[in-house]
Amino acid sequence: MKSEIVAIGSEMLTPFRQDTNSLFLTEKLNEIGVTVAFKTIVGDRRKDLVNAIRTALGRADILILMGGLGPTEDDLTREATAEALNLELRREAPLVAALHARAATWRIAMPENNLKQADVIDGATVLQNANGSAPGQWLDVTFEGFRKLIMLIPGPPSECKPLFEAECLPRLREIVPPRFIAKRTLKAAMIPESQCDKLLAPIYTTYTDIETTILAHNGDIQLSLLCAKRDMDTAEQRVEELATKMEEALDDWLYSTEGETLEQIVLYYLGLRQATLATAESCTGGLVAQRITAIPGSSRSFLGGALVYSNELKTAFAGVPPELIEQHGAVSEEVASALASGIRQRTGATIGLGITGIAGPTGGTDTKPVGLVYIAVSDPQRTDVLERNFRGPRQRVREWTAQQALDLIRRKLM
Amino acid sequence: MKSEIVAIGSEMLTPFRQDTNSLFLTEKLNEIGVTVAFKTIVGDRRKDLVNAIRTALGRADILILMGGLGPTEDDLTREATAEALNLELRREAPLVAALHARAATWRIAMPENNLKQADVIDGATVLQNANGSAPGQWLDVTFEGFRKLIMLIPGPPSECKPLFEAECLPRLREIVPPRFIAKRTLKAAMIPESQCDKLLAPIYTTYTDIETTILAHNGDIQLSLLCAKRDMDTAEQRVEELATKMEEALDDWLYSTEGETLEQIVLYYLGLRQATLATAESCTGGLVAQRITAIPGSSRSFLGGALVYSNELKTAFAGVPPELIEQHGAVSEEVASALASGIRQRTGATIGLGITGIAGPTGGTDTKPVGLVYIAVSDPQRTDVLERNFRGPRQRVREWTAQQALDLIRRKLM
Repeated sequence: MKSEIVAIGSEMLTPFRQDTNSLFLTEKLNEIGVTVAFKTIVGDRRKDLVNAIRTALGRADILILMGGLGPTEDDLTREATAEALNLELRREAPLVAALHARAATWRIAMPENNLKQADVIDGATVLQNANGSAPGQWLDVTFEGFRKLIMLIPGPPSECKPLFEAECLPRLREIVPPRFIAKRTLKAAMIPESQCDKLLAPIYTTYTDIETTILAHNGDIQLSLLCAKRDMDTAEQRVEELATKMEEALDDWLYSTEGETLEQIVLYYLGLRQATLATAESCTGGLVAQRITAIPGSSRSFLGGALVYSNELKTAFAGVPPELIEQHGAVSEEVASALASGIRQRTGATIGLGITGIAGPTGGTDTKPVGLVYIAVSDPQRTDVLERNFRGPRQRVREWTAQQALDLIRRKLM
Repeated sequence: MKSEIVAIGSEMLTPFRQDTNSLFLTEKLNEIGVTVAFKTIVGDRRKDLVNAIRTALGRADILILMGGLGPTEDDLTREATAEALNLELRREAPLVAALHARAATWRIAMPENNLKQADVIDGATVLQNANGSAPGQWLDVTFEGFRKLIMLIPGPPSECKPLFEAECLPRLREIVPPRFIAKRTLKAAMIPESQCDKLLAPIYTTYTDIETTILAHNGDIQLSLLCAKRDMDTAEQRVEELATKMEEALDDWLYSTEGETLEQIVLYYLGLRQATLATAESCTGGLVAQRITAIPGSSRSFLGGALVYSNELKTAFAGVPPELIEQHGAVSEEVASALASGIRQRTGATIGLGITGIAGPTGGTDTKPVGLVYIAVSDPQRTDVLERNFRGPRQRVREWTAQQALDLIRRKLM
């Protein structure tokens, strides 16, 4: 069955914003054997929206209409879908009540225009939105003699993704003929993309029945393997065989065989070793801590740390001697090392991380250029320091540094 | 004039790859007064491609067909465009010669299928591609009684962008009636989207000549105003007039009139007041600090801070009395307040920020549910604490909290 994803919102027709939900939706659709044949991005003009929906009705079996379900004047997906299908909209009393209840919990007065969100297309099933006020809608209709499955889902990623998984996928699975798809995601850190491809291309190109995709971003490499077969055993065997060969080739660059993030792996090893972590970040300003604390349950292994932007705080929070900073400069192997061991001692953590560097765009010198960073990891036995020189703008330097730091901690714990 | 960008390539219908050229093309088109009404992403199937091109011919004046011009079997844009327009393809001798010359320079044998790239649609002008082997094509045709401008341009960004600028834009400028575009971006923080729309819709809907786009994300609202006129003065006056009215209506929700981020504004005010900031974050784990330190030059006003994930570190780094935590709990008004004033005193900063909360998904109780956060801002005069209850998954709670914290600091400094 062919699907079309229609992303709705004028902001996605500007130079500033882009639909990204469709990547997630495509992954989920592929998993049940549905291909995406078209993606359309359309603005909030009713005429254009009706045109886009009618076009999709003419060339796809499954339509995912995403966005335009909010309370504002330019949220027109309900109206346009009803028009394209020649159906009526009804305001549903239970949904009106739910909107009032929601406003009451938030202790805010409910604006009249909010009630739009209680309008339901004739024959549609309401899809619960656990994370927002606008419910989704599901239509299973016959249009010009063909069966069409149409989903209206909200645009914000935090609403779109859970709603699609909880409300749309189970309904689709009941209707779409089953296909068996085996997948595997391998992840590696800090290996250069060209080196990775040179290592792996001779292996994966011989598996023509497996779709292998390599994605590199800020020192993180993701290898996705996908194989579709008539039975699950064959699909899984093929993926397993290729994955095993790639894992061997990647050796200790590999950090995950199940798609976990690097910070999840670090937390996993910390738990396994019953170890705790504390961080003292300068140029990354909390980027490492932020990635770690984004993971639920991180408080079991992550104690906290210090953001030691100023020299004074390097001393006050991580006990770096002022003389050391004076002698070697704040961006130096010695200061990174003192930050790592200092924060470890101050917090009583098993592992201490210290980061200092020049993120740019200014602040570089001939001997210490922009992009120079020192990353130190300290445990009760020793402190290791790594010097790296990352290229590119400020945020790229910061993100590569955070990635390298997490990888160093992983290697320490392995 | 309305345009449609058609991005061609099956890889952009996978979960891994996305068209990004269209953001660049949109910017360039907007600059000459051409709006993008639709974007379509279609794979390398000839039938789907013809369908996408015919659809675009039916709803846009300017068609940009991007990708599918290479030498491989699934590069079908030339064939599909000719079919959609009922035109013939001719193999052009000068282009064949150029392909042979190119292969000779590279000292490679030219595969037969490379010659596809010398096929030109009847009536098309060839567009030079300085960075690749596949030339572009320009068609100025009448289709079902309407004039259509159709561009075939290569997909790789390094070929697409220079070719579009050098070969397409000058031709478009000669045909498209000259229009002048004034733009303005206003930004507001923490105002609920529906309240914002209720406030502003009565104003901006009366300016039908101005395209107003409202974008909301994690407590950040961006309002984009765009007005196209025959002369620049009129366009700017209109945008200025609407912007002024919207600024008045938004009052102190408004934080930027030039598109700056909230953290840039906070840093701007800190600089203006010659004030410094230090942070003590618990549940946000460095999210606030990370946003601030992403801005170049932030080290002038941001001293650093502490990540006080554990109770011990709340005491060690921000001087929160253990009895206070025992009495009121780590997530309480009292502890947030003590974090803010404590980190201020410890670091010598003018302003101290304290955050404590339950980000979830676990850790909530009946009296202190997941999403409950306390945010405190302390200056030499006083410490203010705000209690909020954010909904949704962990990362959403964290991001709303960080946004609210930055907005509190802004309001303190205003």
